[in-house]
Amino acid sequence: MTKINKAACIGGGVIGGGWIARFLLAGIDVDVYDPHPEATRIVGEVLDNAEKAYAMLTGAPLPPRGKLAFKETLEAAVEGADWIQESVPERLDLKRNVLRQIDAAAKPDALIGSSTSGLLPTDLQRDMRHPERLFVAHPYNPVYLLPLVEIVGGEKTSAATIKAAMDRLPPIGMRGVHIAKEIEAFVGDRLLEALWREALWLIKDDICTVETLDDVIRYSFGLRWAQMGLFQTYRIAGGEAGMRHFLAQFGPALQWNWTKLMDVVDLDDALVEKIGQQSDDQADGLSIRELERIRDENLVGILQSLKGGHGGKGWGAGKLLKDFEQQLWAAGGGAKQGLDITKPLRLIDTKVSPAWVDYNGHMTEHRYLQVFGDTSDALLRLIGVDLDYVERGHSYYTVETHIRHLGEAKLGQAIHSTAQILASDEKRLHVFHALHDSASGEIIATAEQMLLHVDAKASKAVAAPEEVLAKLRPISAAHAALAMPEGAGRHVGQKR
Amino acid sequence: MTKINKAACIGGGVIGGGWIARFLLAGIDVDVYDPHPEATRIVGEVLDNAEKAYAMLTGAPLPPRGKLAFKETLEAAVEGADWIQESVPERLDLKRNVLRQIDAAAKPDALIGSSTSGLLPTDLQRDMRHPERLFVAHPYNPVYLLPLVEIVGGEKTSAATIKAAMDRLPPIGMRGVHIAKEIEAFVGDRLLEALWREALWLIKDDICTVETLDDVIRYSFGLRWAQMGLFQTYRIAGGEAGMRHFLAQFGPALQWNWTKLMDVVDLDDALVEKIGQQSDDQADGLSIRELERIRDENLVGILQSLKGGHGGKGWGAGKLLKDFEQQLWAAGGGAKQGLDITKPLRLIDTKVSPAWVDYNGHMTEHRYLQVFGDTSDALLRLIGVDLDYVERGHSYYTVETHIRHLGEAKLGQAIHSTAQILASDEKRLHVFHALHDSASGEIIATAEQMLLHVDAKASKAVAAPEEVLAKLRPISAAHAALAMPEGAGRHVGQKR
Repeated sequence: MTKINKAACIGGGVIGGGWIARFLLAGIDVDVYDPHPEATRIVGEVLDNAEKAYAMLTGAPLPPRGKLAFKETLEAAVEGADWIQESVPERLDLKRNVLRQIDAAAKPDALIGSSTSGLLPTDLQRDMRHPERLFVAHPYNPVYLLPLVEIVGGEKTSAATIKAAMDRLPPIGMRGVHIAKEIEAFVGDRLLEALWREALWLIKDDICTVETLDDVIRYSFGLRWAQMGLFQTYRIAGGEAGMRHFLAQFGPALQWNWTKLMDVVDLDDALVEKIGQQSDDQADGLSIRELERIRDENLVGILQSLKGGHGGKGWGAGKLLKDFEQQLWAAGGGAKQGLDITKPLRLIDTKVSPAWVDYNGHMTEHRYLQVFGDTSDALLRLIGVDLDYVERGHSYYTVETHIRHLGEAKLGQAIHSTAQILASDEKRLHVFHALHDSASGEIIATAEQMLLHVDAKASKAVAAPEEVLAKLRPISAAHAALAMPEGAGRHVGQKR
Repeated sequence: MTKINKAACIGGGVIGGGWIARFLLAGIDVDVYDPHPEATRIVGEVLDNAEKAYAMLTGAPLPPRGKLAFKETLEAAVEGADWIQESVPERLDLKRNVLRQIDAAAKPDALIGSSTSGLLPTDLQRDMRHPERLFVAHPYNPVYLLPLVEIVGGEKTSAATIKAAMDRLPPIGMRGVHIAKEIEAFVGDRLLEALWREALWLIKDDICTVETLDDVIRYSFGLRWAQMGLFQTYRIAGGEAGMRHFLAQFGPALQWNWTKLMDVVDLDDALVEKIGQQSDDQADGLSIRELERIRDENLVGILQSLKGGHGGKGWGAGKLLKDFEQQLWAAGGGAKQGLDITKPLRLIDTKVSPAWVDYNGHMTEHRYLQVFGDTSDALLRLIGVDLDYVERGHSYYTVETHIRHLGEAKLGQAIHSTAQILASDEKRLHVFHALHDSASGEIIATAEQMLLHVDAKASKAVAAPEEVLAKLRPISAAHAALAMPEGAGRHVGQKR
């Protein structure tokens, strides 16, 4: 994996804005060129959504946000960029012209991706002097949450370009999927277009409304496809007899009249109005902004749940999220070592995620302990007890926790935690965490915890090795000078 | 909503087995007729999967499981049933014959559903004496987790039948969607068939492999469709300009050559073998059983995450789950009142869900508090503090918790919690919970909690009303005779 140093985005609509957010939130500076008078506002809105989503998506430490600059000319934006993403409107002549300008201004080894959802890379690269570095990088909306990028090369695209493009996506939380041959609309939009055409017939013929059709999708195969695709799902449906049996069984349906796709629907005014009206009814008063927020919160929840899939190893898009977070932790661990150890350590900064609240919008009881557990994990990483360490067979286990609730945290609220070491020896680590409202600094809850260093296999407490204790001692010593926090040593129901 | 008293399932394959599981787990007795020699084994396997999934899906109290009986004749199975579900192989002559026999043996007001995924109800009901009660009830695999049932009437189906069928699905956790006009394959399979045909071309033409195609789906629109369908998603894509604008923009693509659906792919031996081989590669050694388990765990996680969507109100299939759980709590509350109050109260019985474990398969720290929080919630429901009570403006808030970890809970392990009241007055409720391994009874963890009765709006402690205290006092009094549990009153790090 190789990280992009500077990105340029030519075209800053909803798709361009999504790319900009991906780059910035991964710590990459972005220069933008878009002559549209509202480009700044549109990009700002996408970026705002993206920052909210990321804050809920992960507690891993995001790098300092990259610098965003809108430039007066395409040439100024492209200068020095090693990834240039073109997201201008879907017209071949326009894209060719923009790509020719990018080609002339870009540094020789820059990668040039096009967000086109249908045009062939061979057609796009026709007029370029260095066409070997042009490829399609087709993302999906919302770009800041959906990880897929279809990577497609044209006749003149080099294999090195495809490899370089694929390598640069994981550090921004995305996943490139290489499409072997170029066809119009690639793979995802081919599938979507087929289903879309059938859907339009079902509405036109009054078989169902758009709301019923959407319910059919989201209560059935939509749930399947968030985690396995079409073929893996059918493999299971085939049972022990396997995929070949499944195909033999369902092949005949291909000859049946189970689709109207031999015809193309006429999307006339009457059909547009019908769909428009049914869609208004379905929205039931929710604005586009509200729907976007609900969509993003749902996507965050689904991604987080898939992160725990496959016995905690992560599955599908959740596996990608897990890998992305591990990169962030690995990169962020170093930064945290610059902490001032003479004070309680500020270790977790996050926002209250939609999956964390009850129907009143208050953070659920056990989510407080989740943040405190993450705080202990972050403290342990500081003293070298990270995933590698745990995989080698030793760890710290929590044996006892005391939580006090002093206030409430609400959906979307910015919160952070601090950790103070009360005492430690070679086996024991006695800590006191506080959860703060980040705006006021006020303490919302505290947790006192006792952790023991254990041999996980033998399941017994053992002394931590010198490499760990050597990192723990200076923090412990510094914190020995701090006052005992209010509430430490309490038992439940104790008089104040 | 009306509950089914007794169900009959004619045909017990994977789909029939899924229906059987839905009925049994909702407390409904089921008689089955299936002459297939392996019917008992197949149904048993589906039921086993379903029970595992339900145990992880919800902590709400499932009713006592219904009684399952395999009958020697169709007539014996159908006797006394008020919902009869036909799930025999997909051949019109066979289904007509079976439905004619069901029609003759069923009680007059029984509802008769067919699981057909493509045949027209008008064709199915042709030979029936009481065709008005026949409808298509087309579910999706796995039937015990996916809530969708497409309800389709034929020419002779009565409106009362459709209404009755729709009403009887929520009590078994499912959602009927009424398809206005009958067409072959209804709505879901129409959409699937269109996408499937396009997918077969993409594989045949070597544009991508089945694994790449599945990744394209599950890293992009699959995540969207688990929560919103096609039209709602595109409504957002249209932005503030709305659905009509979106259609105007994307309409022209209908005229482009963005699909090969004008042709039907020839699913010859070479293509079957190609897909079979690619599917084997994709599975990467995972058996069908393992894939089923992963799929079910992922579906449970996605459903649970959507249950928290829309600011905790639930969204899509998660809203259905939330509604289903509320029915279960409402029904189960009464049963719990038969508890022996002279002992700690056994309140939560569940299994360790895949979303609850770390990559080592151990239950994560904060999930212990989730189970303890659910235990307090169940105790509060016993004394009349339920959702209605909370919505009227008062509640009990946890102000302090002390947790001890004495053992470990692992993925899939059956666990239960008990609650003991240590003390109570008009404002305070001091409890001690224990989490047990259900097999050995051994205590894995304990939680001591102090709860305060509050006026939620004023955010201050107030005395609980007499109606609540009257239910609390007898339990409190009975528990006063119990010994103080070991570990109560401890502070963190206290010597034993």
